[in-house]
Amino acid sequence: MIADVFQRGCTSRHALETVTGRWGVLTVAGLRDGAVRFNALRRRIDGVSEKMLAQTLQGLERDGLVVREVRATIPPHVEYSLTDLGRAVADKLVGLLDVLEAAVPQVAAAQQAYDARTAR
Amino acid sequence: MIADVFQRGCTSRHALETVTGRWGVLTVAGLRDGAVRFNALRRRIDGVSEKMLAQTLQGLERDGLVVREVRATIPPHVEYSLTDLGRAVADKLVGLLDVLEAAVPQVAAAQQAYDARTAR
Repeated sequence: MIADVFQRGCTSRHALETVTGRWGVLTVAGLRDGAVRFNALRRRIDGVSEKMLAQTLQGLERDGLVVREVRATIPPHVEYSLTDLGRAVADKLVGLLDVLEAAVPQVAAAQQAYDARTAR
Repeated sequence: MIADVFQRGCTSRHALETVTGRWGVLTVAGLRDGAVRFNALRRRIDGVSEKMLAQTLQGLERDGLVVREVRATIPPHVEYSLTDLGRAVADKLVGLLDVLEAAVPQVAAAQQAYDARTAR
């Protein structure tokens, strides 16, 4: 079978939905610089709740993008990091985020023009 | 102000949510090969409803990624295409989709292993 992300039943479509779910992109991108503890990641991603971040990490772990590791420190703590696949995805996402961050003035201008047009 | 997609109030964060909303990625990717009519796009994106596709296109138009053009044919018809910014975003997304489509065997294996682990 040839993978086709446009098809509902394809595993790649499922993985796309995990990655681009409400918090998926920022979670993957937030792990790009190395292993991170839950609360540090949560602070980085402004607006995410504990529950949503936990669910997002679980989905990413299930699809093989993220590894959860318990460090045997005292007290023990849990770290999340990217797998090789997760890193490959993160590299693509960071390219996307760079484009969007650089486009802020354009997006803002487009929104203003659109709102002026549709308010008539 | 420096754009930071991790911050809630940033326009780039808003644009990210438009692009990676439920149908954003497939809509942008589906427009990558040139202007497309609404129904053709809808057929391509398996599972999207008319309402959701219309909302998605509207959001992308507002953020300046998509242009809606009425062609003066008889009967007139409406076409959607990407702006330069939309194309830049699409190029990044296609890289992501390629990674995910190539990763289908890995993702499926990770899901099986995860489910076996958590079923205990």
